Amino acid sequence: MKLRPLADRVIVKRIESETKTASGIVIPDNAAEKPDQGEVLAVGPGKLDDNGKRIELSIKVGDRVLFGKYSGQTVKVDGDELLVMKEDDLFAVVEK
Amino acid sequence: MKLRPLADRVIVKRIESETKTASGIVIPDNAAEKPDQGEVLAVGPGKLDDNGKRIELSIKVGDRVLFGKYSGQTVKVDGDELLVMKEDDLFAVVEK
Amino acid sequence: MKLRPLADRVIVKRIESETKTASGIVIPDNAAEKPDQGEVLAVGPGKLDDNGKRIELSIKVGDRVLFGKYSGQTVKVDGDELLVMKEDDLFAVVEK
Amino acid sequence: MKLRPLADRVIVKRIESETKTASGIVIPDNAAEKPDQGEVLAVGPGKLDDNGKRIELSIKVGDRVLFGKYSGQTVKVDGDELLVMKEDDLFAVVEK
Amino acid sequence: MKLRPLADRVIVKRIESETKTASGIVIPDNAAEKPDQGEVLAVGPGKLDDNGKRIELSIKVGDRVLFGKYSGQTVKVDGDELLVMKEDDLFAVVEK
Amino acid sequence: MKLRPLADRVIVKRIESETKTASGIVIPDNAAEKPDQGEVLAVGPGKLDDNGKRIELSIKVGDRVLFGKYSGQTVKVDGDELLVMKEDDLFAVVEK
Amino acid sequence: MKLRPLADRVIVKRIESETKTASGIVIPDNAAEKPDQGEVLAVGPGKLDDNGKRIELSIKVGDRVLFGKYSGQTVKVDGDELLVMKEDDLFAVVEK
Repeated sequence: MKLRPLADRVIVKRIESETKTASGIVIPDNAAEKPDQGEVLAVGPGKLDDNGKRIELSIKVGDRVLFGKYSGQTVKVDGDELLVMKEDDLFAVVEK
Repeated sequence: MKLRPLADRVIVKRIESETKTASGIVIPDNAAEKPDQGEVLAVGPGKLDDNGKRIELSIKVGDRVLFGKYSGQTVKVDGDELLVMKEDDLFAVVEK
Repeated sequence: MKLRPLADRVIVKRIESETKTASGIVIPDNAAEKPDQGEVLAVGPGKLDDNGKRIELSIKVGDRVLFGKYSGQTVKVDGDELLVMKEDDLFAVVEK
Repeated sequence: MKLRPLADRVIVKRIESETKTASGIVIPDNAAEKPDQGEVLAVGPGKLDDNGKRIELSIKVGDRVLFGKYSGQTVKVDGDELLVMKEDDLFAVVEK
Repeated sequence: MKLRPLADRVIVKRIESETKTASGIVIPDNAAEKPDQGEVLAVGPGKLDDNGKRIELSIKVGDRVLFGKYSGQTVKVDGDELLVMKEDDLFAVVEK
Repeated sequence: MKLRPLADRVIVKRIESETKTASGIVIPDNAAEKPDQGEVLAVGPGKLDDNGKRIELSIKVGDRVLFGKYSGQTVKVDGDELLVMKEDDLFAVVEK
Repeated sequence: MKLRPLADRVIVKRIESETKTASGIVIPDNAAEKPDQGEVLAVGPGKLDDNGKRIELSIKVGDRVLFGKYSGQTVKVDGDELLVMKEDDLFAVVEK
């Protein structure tokens, strides 16, 4: 199933951060510890400006993005939990 | 009964997702599991822009769309429960 | 008494839906069952756009319209309970 | 005392509706029964548009108007209880 | 101490209404009885419009104005309790 | 430490009003008595208008200003408690 | 890990203020005492204006900035707690 986002929306798959101690015990994240990062799976064509021209998004598929803990709305597609956000909900692109 | 939506509204019929185990037992959806998808039954002509020109919708009748769990308002027409949404409430078009 | 709505307002008379069983027993509506439809009794001349031009309404007197359960404000005129709504509160025109 | 409303404001004197039974007993209004109508006593010169031009009001002194039960703010001038509203709070002109 | 209001602000001194019975007993106002009127002590130069031009106020020092019971913010200057309001908070000019 | 405010912000140092009785006893202010006045320590360059031009502030460093009791946000810089406000939060300039 | 902020966002690292008594005892900040200052680590390219042109930010990487106690959203990146803010959340640049 393929998603084609509308306007300035993006579909993001959250990258779960995992905390492991030296001895390999996985510590579950608490909210304060979880950086909200994800990979962009699909981007919309952009909103229309006042002259009817599309304002293209400044991010692209594959970008790793940083966003707010409570940003976006969760949808479940083909068993995957995805986030739908507007471009303006994204804080930054994480460069490797 | 035929509906002609006004402005940037769309009429959507929700596609109920059904969860069946391997042995065929139907598990009722809980909110977290229900992807909100529907089929577009009718689309409005679009809102007027500042120059009085219609901004046509970017979706069309028959599109399968993804939207928020609490988006839209429910109306009952000829026994069918339909959703009335603004185009901006739609997240994405689901392509098969 | 005749009403001349101002700006983008419309006056609507709700069409009460009635549910009758096969044997003719009338079942009172509950909120979930009541499609909010009405007949347009009067329409305003439209709002002014930024250039001082009227934006005519896209509905007309006699149209059967669909709207939200909680849309509009109720007024009582000559014993009739009418709804006053802005055009934007209307969802769709119901075509017969 | 004469009032000169500012911008798009109007001064309205509510017309109390009175319910009298056939035998002449006056029944006090309850909220559901009271159509909110009034007579326009004064109108402002209109708001300024973006080009600094006044947008004249579409109602005039003497018009009988229909408005929401909770519209406007009450002021007491010379012992009279008057309503101050913006033109946009008025629903319709009642024609006789 | 002299006040020079900024933008579209006005400084108003409330005119206390006093209710005296025929026999001269002063009855303290209750909220429902107190018309909020005041005298304009100072007016600002007006807000800037989109082209950077001042939009002059339509009221002037000395005007007697009518406003909402809860309009404006109270400041105490040289022992006097004054009201600071935006022009848009004023309802009407009271002409004598 | 010097502060350079951004956009239409101003830095204000509150002038504490002090109430002293004839016999020299200092009476602490209560909220109702405290006129909120301050001295402007720094002003921003102004916001950008729609054409990208700075809209200069109409107040200047050294001005004594009047503002709302709850306006602005408090910051502590080098031990001094200062207020950060937008120009629009200022009511008037107090002229001596 | 490098962050490239979007639109008018900035990434700020809070400079913890430390209060030490003469004898060297560190007193933990309480909210009233903590001036919220930080160093700008990254700035976005600016928002688009109505003509599609970027409005460059007026602050730059390395600036020491003053902001509200509750401004911004906290993210944790590579173990560092950073603040993501819009330029408009910044009050002033602190010059040394």
